[in-house]
Amino acid sequence: MPANKRSTSSSGERPIGVFDSGIGGLTVVKALRDVLPNEDVFYLGDTARVPYGNKSAETVERYAIELADILTRENAKVIVVACNTVSSVAIPKLRAHVSVPVIGVIEPGAQAAIATTRNRHVGVIGTRATVRSGAYENALRALNVHARVTSRPCPLLVPLIEEGLLEDKLTDQVITRYLEPMIAEGIDTLVLGCTHYPLLAPAIARSLGDDVKLVDSAQNCAIAVRNLLDRQSLRAPQDRQGTLRVALTDAADNFLNVAREALQLDIGEVELRALS
Amino acid sequence: MPANKRSTSSSGERPIGVFDSGIGGLTVVKALRDVLPNEDVFYLGDTARVPYGNKSAETVERYAIELADILTRENAKVIVVACNTVSSVAIPKLRAHVSVPVIGVIEPGAQAAIATTRNRHVGVIGTRATVRSGAYENALRALNVHARVTSRPCPLLVPLIEEGLLEDKLTDQVITRYLEPMIAEGIDTLVLGCTHYPLLAPAIARSLGDDVKLVDSAQNCAIAVRNLLDRQSLRAPQDRQGTLRVALTDAADNFLNVAREALQLDIGEVELRALS
Repeated sequence: MPANKRSTSSSGERPIGVFDSGIGGLTVVKALRDVLPNEDVFYLGDTARVPYGNKSAETVERYAIELADILTRENAKVIVVACNTVSSVAIPKLRAHVSVPVIGVIEPGAQAAIATTRNRHVGVIGTRATVRSGAYENALRALNVHARVTSRPCPLLVPLIEEGLLEDKLTDQVITRYLEPMIAEGIDTLVLGCTHYPLLAPAIARSLGDDVKLVDSAQNCAIAVRNLLDRQSLRAPQDRQGTLRVALTDAADNFLNVAREALQLDIGEVELRALS
Repeated sequence: MPANKRSTSSSGERPIGVFDSGIGGLTVVKALRDVLPNEDVFYLGDTARVPYGNKSAETVERYAIELADILTRENAKVIVVACNTVSSVAIPKLRAHVSVPVIGVIEPGAQAAIATTRNRHVGVIGTRATVRSGAYENALRALNVHARVTSRPCPLLVPLIEEGLLEDKLTDQVITRYLEPMIAEGIDTLVLGCTHYPLLAPAIARSLGDDVKLVDSAQNCAIAVRNLLDRQSLRAPQDRQGTLRVALTDAADNFLNVAREALQLDIGEVELRALS
């Protein structure tokens, strides 16, 4: 009998580790459950220190490494950064720090947008911090130097989502207010550059109409994880049902209930992981 | 010639020290400028660590003492806590720590509400953290055990204000959505329990109609400061024009421009005070 079951378990039983500054990253978990139903997922949300958007890059890097260490102790076979702020500043440090692959949300979203756009004019919406970081713009231009990027911070969307107003005429009005100028400027593709936003995907798609395609970073992140597991032969056996564990660093707020219901995720008992 | 000009200056030249977790407390500064035009005001906003709402009481107390120490070094003759979160948890610790009087926003707001209400049914709106703390409820009940309090968190209002949508039909709809049930429950007085909210006072008053009176915590806090300065003979000479200095612990965001314009405050050059 092995002394430590976890460290000697086969890769098929090692979970995909996912972390976020809060609860928004559960949209990535939902996409992972859909794309990789055989995989175990361990989600860690740093609700004690959310939001990260106004913290310095050094602080975000330090927090990200603390969270990655917790996922490493859970024997994660890959670490998914389900947070735009962390993805925009801390991926290189994380890759140098941990021994497993690290995947963020920005790169897969940018790749999908470049594959989707026909006129090379891509729109990006996100929080003020994400838009100010220019991370999607840099990633899109790195993939295609001719890409034109129109970015817009949409600070009202996260509070509307956290209030649970996912299908509401107020939310529709706010979305139209934000998107109309971007559509008028000629974008043909819109990247949801915030892990909360997939919860508004139906409302946003309605506002965009048929001529502008929606790119969901969460969805594309999950596909990138599947491709990576395939390349490295790390996929769990196809005959098993994956499990989900959710841990938070502080008590959850109302948004956990919104996410649970809207995403139809079987979250079960939430574990508390106090940070030292 | 005195060795230290500041510590020997007359009380008339010592500023009123005001601090907040961010920029919202400038509504209190505006009220202080109106009520006490002869006084110098030094404002300190902890933009590096905003928001405080989801931080533990111990952390908020520690931050508050750091900020009060900076105001003490500026030779403040009174310290005004222009922040509901700090006012709800840290006033006793602050009073024990500094040698000058400390005034928060909750007590003056609660007193004004009790003086205003006729049917003893008071409404309170604020952030989720403020409403959850129960601070206004406790303060109101301490003043009148028969007071009935209906509280409601309004998490969409701060982002609407920070977007500058002070006079906008979207904002009007959100306000109506929040206030209609409170009016239906029979409140006759509404306390603005968040330092951002006075920027929406005209829109909120429109939504309330004539039967519900508005109590502005910022305004009542400024009146409490005037009464205290009078009692302790600390008022500046009536023949001088007070000055305003604004310091922040990190770069200001878009909201500083909104506040500057909407409050018509002559803020001048903002100083940066890095925290150690």
